[in-house]
Amino acid sequence: MIQPPSEILSVLQKAKKVLVVTHVYPDGDALGSQLALGECLESLGKEVFLYSEEKVSHLYDFLPGCSKLRHSLDDVSAYDCVVSVDCAECHRMGRATDGLLAAKQVIMIDHHAGHQLFGDLHWVDPNRASTGEMIYDLVVALGAEISPDAAYCLYTALVSDTGSFMYSSTTADTFRVAADLVNRGVKPSDVAGKLFDNFTINRLKLLRLVLDSLEIHGDDRIALISATREMFGETETVPADTENFINYPRSLASVRVAAFIKETRNGVVSVSLRSKGDDCDVAAVAAEFGGGGHRNAAGFKIVDGDRITVRRELLQKLEKLVAPL
Amino acid sequence: MIQPPSEILSVLQKAKKVLVVTHVYPDGDALGSQLALGECLESLGKEVFLYSEEKVSHLYDFLPGCSKLRHSLDDVSAYDCVVSVDCAECHRMGRATDGLLAAKQVIMIDHHAGHQLFGDLHWVDPNRASTGEMIYDLVVALGAEISPDAAYCLYTALVSDTGSFMYSSTTADTFRVAADLVNRGVKPSDVAGKLFDNFTINRLKLLRLVLDSLEIHGDDRIALISATREMFGETETVPADTENFINYPRSLASVRVAAFIKETRNGVVSVSLRSKGDDCDVAAVAAEFGGGGHRNAAGFKIVDGDRITVRRELLQKLEKLVAPL
Repeated sequence: MIQPPSEILSVLQKAKKVLVVTHVYPDGDALGSQLALGECLESLGKEVFLYSEEKVSHLYDFLPGCSKLRHSLDDVSAYDCVVSVDCAECHRMGRATDGLLAAKQVIMIDHHAGHQLFGDLHWVDPNRASTGEMIYDLVVALGAEISPDAAYCLYTALVSDTGSFMYSSTTADTFRVAADLVNRGVKPSDVAGKLFDNFTINRLKLLRLVLDSLEIHGDDRIALISATREMFGETETVPADTENFINYPRSLASVRVAAFIKETRNGVVSVSLRSKGDDCDVAAVAAEFGGGGHRNAAGFKIVDGDRITVRRELLQKLEKLVAPL
Repeated sequence: MIQPPSEILSVLQKAKKVLVVTHVYPDGDALGSQLALGECLESLGKEVFLYSEEKVSHLYDFLPGCSKLRHSLDDVSAYDCVVSVDCAECHRMGRATDGLLAAKQVIMIDHHAGHQLFGDLHWVDPNRASTGEMIYDLVVALGAEISPDAAYCLYTALVSDTGSFMYSSTTADTFRVAADLVNRGVKPSDVAGKLFDNFTINRLKLLRLVLDSLEIHGDDRIALISATREMFGETETVPADTENFINYPRSLASVRVAAFIKETRNGVVSVSLRSKGDDCDVAAVAAEFGGGGHRNAAGFKIVDGDRITVRRELLQKLEKLVAPL
């Protein structure tokens, strides 16, 4: 097991009232980590509050404990500490960021490479595949009870942020934690079913249309797909329904860089980028458009842009990226 | 670790010349187990021969050691023992079955539920997710060196037979073995990339056409897709390119049973069936058409059939299967 910083253990051991927060538009790792940490701290007799700006997306509302999330915050000074999980930088906590940072003690626990430290105490380890793995080690170190619900949330966090153990971030530690969570009763196929077998018929129709948009460029090294407002309208879907679609162009054997251009609503163009291996840094490309991310997974948004122009400008940069030196 | 039967360890410890075989049309678990066991037995100073009826499919030829496979067999009596890995019953060893069964000692190692014992010594455990996991425990018990190549083959076996740890067969033991193999240097994303990012552009075109064939029946509980000879012709693909396509209809949230009807060549109709949960036994449906398989994954082939008739007869049986009692 990997030992969390002793100062963080000490603050959490003493705290009576703890507020646990995560980032806006929370994914499986964010919510799974938040809910599990809350549950485990409660097992230690602490009073725990869970805050989230928005309602949980239908993609993650299967997580046990979702109903405990509160969507408004009162006086932050009432808490002995605030624990922020899976937030790479403070503004990812959303509208409440300034208030949260004014708390007595702010603990940051995260695994993102491009993080910016905030708060009083930090445990940030970009070598970990998920924040969920770190929360597991934290609650074990605290001697907390890991209930079946907490184990389920942590396992969901692991699977969610590793694409079911397929991403390069997956380590022997990820598997060590997974083995223990399964020993505690988690059924892997149940979590995988909830995370991945969640297609609606409309979503499958949208996938067909998006696959029809496939373009190949740069000597088969660039693959690009697009979702237009018309496609969302025709299939009665929303941009959130395109989750994981980027994996289709990425899965082509010859492709080094995949891009997915979405018209999210009038005048907003959202772009996801993926690359394989160490040669193509898509975070650098995203940064040129004001976005960010990791070397192999990045993105950006253009407000008041148009899909055709974004596609042309992006393609020029991607062709330079994949060109042989 | 799970201890293999001592008789099997004893025979393998004494053996000098060992022949390792697996089933025809070998998948990742079959080949990964065969190649890894061969490599590990060689590390113990044994002379090892690997037999496979056919050339390795392009889907698995990334496995290190494939070139050691021989496609013809001479006198089986020259071997001290034959180890059959991942064969649920003897005829799955192919044309050489009768010759192989005449060997001095035949050891059967397998994890399929519907197995039929053959040979002299058996280690068959349907609770294991892959034969690869069992081979790992076997080579550890033998004190063999697990080279990086052997670890890579075993990890491929695990991932291949669990759909990257998503199938219900996945256990804490699966993760325990995965953790150790990753500790030995296997990169999970490398194996996942080789197994799952192997789409060609033509294969993606075929996927679009097959998704266009989606039909929903039985109050949204049955999903059916089809691949016709025309689709294979138009996209210059072959039936093997449809691997995993059945997962699309299966991934629909409302669906209990998914079917994929393929016209593999003139007059041959091949059908894959998948179900979710414990209520729908697709092996029983497959058996009515002369096929077989597991409760949640089964299939059958109709020679001299036609797609339209097979579809109609199958649909009738599936509608009965999903009908509320």
